[in-house]
Amino acid sequence: MKKDMGAKLMVYPTPIYLVATYDGAGKPNVMTVGWGGVCCSNPPCISVSVRKATHTYHALMERKAFTANLPSAGFADEVSYFGKASGKNEDKFEKTGLTPVRSEYVDAPYIEEMSVNLECKIIQIHELGSHIQFIGQIINAKADANLKEGIPIIEQIVPIVYSVGNDHRYYKIGEAIIPKSSE
Amino acid sequence: MKKDMGAKLMVYPTPIYLVATYDGAGKPNVMTVGWGGVCCSNPPCISVSVRKATHTYHALMERKAFTANLPSAGFADEVSYFGKASGKNEDKFEKTGLTPVRSEYVDAPYIEEMSVNLECKIIQIHELGSHIQFIGQIINAKADANLKEGIPIIEQIVPIVYSVGNDHRYYKIGEAIIPKSSE
Repeated sequence: MKKDMGAKLMVYPTPIYLVATYDGAGKPNVMTVGWGGVCCSNPPCISVSVRKATHTYHALMERKAFTANLPSAGFADEVSYFGKASGKNEDKFEKTGLTPVRSEYVDAPYIEEMSVNLECKIIQIHELGSHIQFIGQIINAKADANLKEGIPIIEQIVPIVYSVGNDHRYYKIGEAIIPKSSE
Repeated sequence: MKKDMGAKLMVYPTPIYLVATYDGAGKPNVMTVGWGGVCCSNPPCISVSVRKATHTYHALMERKAFTANLPSAGFADEVSYFGKASGKNEDKFEKTGLTPVRSEYVDAPYIEEMSVNLECKIIQIHELGSHIQFIGQIINAKADANLKEGIPIIEQIVPIVYSVGNDHRYYKIGEAIIPKSSE
């Protein structure tokens, strides 16, 4: 038996990207984005959606570039803070002590402390309503040099996912499931 | 220390949607999609990207509608199968015994056995390269009537996420993380 919930974003879970940019003055900024995902294999692209009112929106329009940094579970406090504060009023890097490093590939900083950094050039922009969707082509992916071969990356970086709606919680990734057809 | 990995989709994890459609002949079909995510709050929208070679692509173009069904961990075998087989050659619903039910809101079937069903009307289509991105506005979300109030939905449905790249594994969602600022 089903019940109708109306036009609701009952989407569980969403990934979490820390989207880092330079603003017009060259100041690095970072914002937590849950509205995003992979959208193309070749060229490799991800999408991130933000509201026009955000500081990040203006940086994305100006620089046409960003990095998407994958936070490990140990950075849940920073993830929460980056989603609430605005780069208009605060220097989020200074406040958290995380390190913005200029990408050699795109006009954006990546976050040194995150295990994976996706350096993206914006190739399309779509107005959808409350949110503007930016399609970022991955020009280069950086990974921690000490990630081990032979162990799934997801089990090494322990990324955070997000639960929307009334729940508003972050979760770790749990145990692997091996489908029977793969055994 | 970082190492450059090149233009790779190092995106961990991706969500998993079972995208269900009617084809030109009215036959229900379903495909596992990992290239997707939320992209707008108002109107509530998700994106799904598929290749032109898929049976689902033609159904999406023709019907301008789909449902995105969230699979629980117990359906990992079906998820794996739906990602490998094509609706051109096989009746995936018949083969798995899952139940397609006609949506009252959009021209697509939803999967009765999945806990959450997002009934979507396609409002934008973007050519990105290997994949075409469909923006689906959620007209209605259905949920199992026996989902309990007061317990996070994600902990009741135990959705599957996907790990890309060499790993190609599915994972359960793990424990909740409560950021300090929320305590």
